[in-house]
Amino acid sequence: MNVTQANNARVLIRRMPVGAPTIDDFELDVKPASTAPGPGEILVRTRWLSLDPYVRALMSGRHFLRMPQPGEVMPAAAVAEVLASRNDRFSVGDRVVLQTGLQSYAISDAAAAWKLHPEHVPESTALGILGMPGMTAYFGLKETAQLRAGETVLVSAASGPVGSMVGQIAQQWGARAIGIAGSDEKCDWVRKQARFDACINYRKQDVGARLKELAPNGVDVFFDNTGGALQHLVVTGRHLAMKGRVILCGLIDQYSMKDAPPGPNLGALMACRGRIEPTIVYDYEHRREEFMREVLPWHTAGRLAFEEDVAVGIESAASQYCRLLRGENFGKTLVRLPW
Amino acid sequence: MNVTQANNARVLIRRMPVGAPTIDDFELDVKPASTAPGPGEILVRTRWLSLDPYVRALMSGRHFLRMPQPGEVMPAAAVAEVLASRNDRFSVGDRVVLQTGLQSYAISDAAAAWKLHPEHVPESTALGILGMPGMTAYFGLKETAQLRAGETVLVSAASGPVGSMVGQIAQQWGARAIGIAGSDEKCDWVRKQARFDACINYRKQDVGARLKELAPNGVDVFFDNTGGALQHLVVTGRHLAMKGRVILCGLIDQYSMKDAPPGPNLGALMACRGRIEPTIVYDYEHRREEFMREVLPWHTAGRLAFEEDVAVGIESAASQYCRLLRGENFGKTLVRLPW
Repeated sequence: MNVTQANNARVLIRRMPVGAPTIDDFELDVKPASTAPGPGEILVRTRWLSLDPYVRALMSGRHFLRMPQPGEVMPAAAVAEVLASRNDRFSVGDRVVLQTGLQSYAISDAAAAWKLHPEHVPESTALGILGMPGMTAYFGLKETAQLRAGETVLVSAASGPVGSMVGQIAQQWGARAIGIAGSDEKCDWVRKQARFDACINYRKQDVGARLKELAPNGVDVFFDNTGGALQHLVVTGRHLAMKGRVILCGLIDQYSMKDAPPGPNLGALMACRGRIEPTIVYDYEHRREEFMREVLPWHTAGRLAFEEDVAVGIESAASQYCRLLRGENFGKTLVRLPW
Repeated sequence: MNVTQANNARVLIRRMPVGAPTIDDFELDVKPASTAPGPGEILVRTRWLSLDPYVRALMSGRHFLRMPQPGEVMPAAAVAEVLASRNDRFSVGDRVVLQTGLQSYAISDAAAAWKLHPEHVPESTALGILGMPGMTAYFGLKETAQLRAGETVLVSAASGPVGSMVGQIAQQWGARAIGIAGSDEKCDWVRKQARFDACINYRKQDVGARLKELAPNGVDVFFDNTGGALQHLVVTGRHLAMKGRVILCGLIDQYSMKDAPPGPNLGALMACRGRIEPTIVYDYEHRREEFMREVLPWHTAGRLAFEEDVAVGIESAASQYCRLLRGENFGKTLVRLPW
């Protein structure tokens, strides 16, 4: 294939979203791809684009990573194929994960790029349970929460790539998992496929009452992917066990808000000696091998359920992203490029 | 002295306060003292009564300890003299610290009572810097905050018994102390007597701006004795250093509120990997000797400043307590009994 004449389709931020993003906040731009990597750089063609809720936080300017600006490519990680390399670490044909943004071709210094393992099957798992979301769950439980066997973990967005791995890793380690999700279909999957002990449909059920039934002494770890009402409920509603830990991971409930809303009153932490602490996956990048060593065998043995929500073609990326932010996705949300 | 005919003056809760307590919420009751301890019990006469902000939290029903009821004696710790003992651990004449409530005589099972050390001089220090407030500061820094030399500690209510000890212990351990207090007089004392590095008058100064000057990279430990606006400022205003710890100790700003107010948005903890955790002094009761071994020599050598705010006579206890809750006290707030 002659990549010197390829066009690059890019999803640009047309304007910063106000509230939940809509497709009018983005535009598709097509122009000839730059195909000449400089020294140390690689040229890649993206195969899978990752849609992640935290990118909405970037756009609100409240994330600690850089806020993207109108006219720029929408930030995203990708599984990509190396088409040309002037970097010793990568060769033509390598499949890599790196930040490309939502576009079909990219040139990168590859500083944070990493090669897929042969057992990243399907390769999209490198963006999901065997990639950043999986590592978030793994190190969040292992290091931030210091999870121990016999404990009970509660996790929100339980059918998502982080949430489903939180529960499944917890169970591998001898802990009990309770999920929270937004539909009966998701809850069924969480219980039957991901084999959580229980899953609460927060749109239909009284979460506080169900929690009192499922964990009368409270949960040892609340892995918080959403923030909002559920965070308030767990912290102020005395749903934490003694020495319970609230692991702040995602705050999707507030990403689209103009201003950050108040948090939960912290007084109830006194009684249970509860701790609140964020987990940041980037802090564990140097421990990717440790993660892969432990988790990959579970995957290879077919013990990890995962669900993917795939749109095909970059022209579907913006609407797929908007669906994700409305909570209409089911599983790891991706865009598949057509080659 | 013939204690068999003594009268016991007691401060009773007449009604549960609404908002800040007033003296009309209490009443003084005088009746003959019970003077016959049962098996295992001791009879004591109180010498110093401790007035503590957390008791207001008990009265709101939001504390994890029992809520007192109208008609009961107002809860309080005391330094007391043993007048009669049927308990092997205590002898007549012993000076002890125990929970008596605001009254002049009490009979106690002495389960949580402990004897003063000869170097509890003045003996009221057993209720302040060398008692519960001092231990709160000590174990809060040592265990909950895991304070290290070279770090910076910010503490609210810095002229109080907990706050002043937080700063002074921090300095003994090679850390830097910044106080926050509510008057120039208190701030002067905090800087000059307790030798903090700095003290901010939150009623007069722009706390956020001062903090940016005093700790441009943030504080490593925020020892929170008050909650409220300052807690919001530190957590959401990016005043925590990387791996900063917010130690929840007191929430005096909300004790008199009918309902617990919202807390700070927790999103900003992500960037600094900040942790929020309560410290509960009762969890360290079994380590009192460790505290005394380290802190008592500092006191004996005259290296610990402390301020006391003393009212004389149990008839002054209710109004003294109300002053404390209005923040009009200066230092450890006590009632001295006249014998």
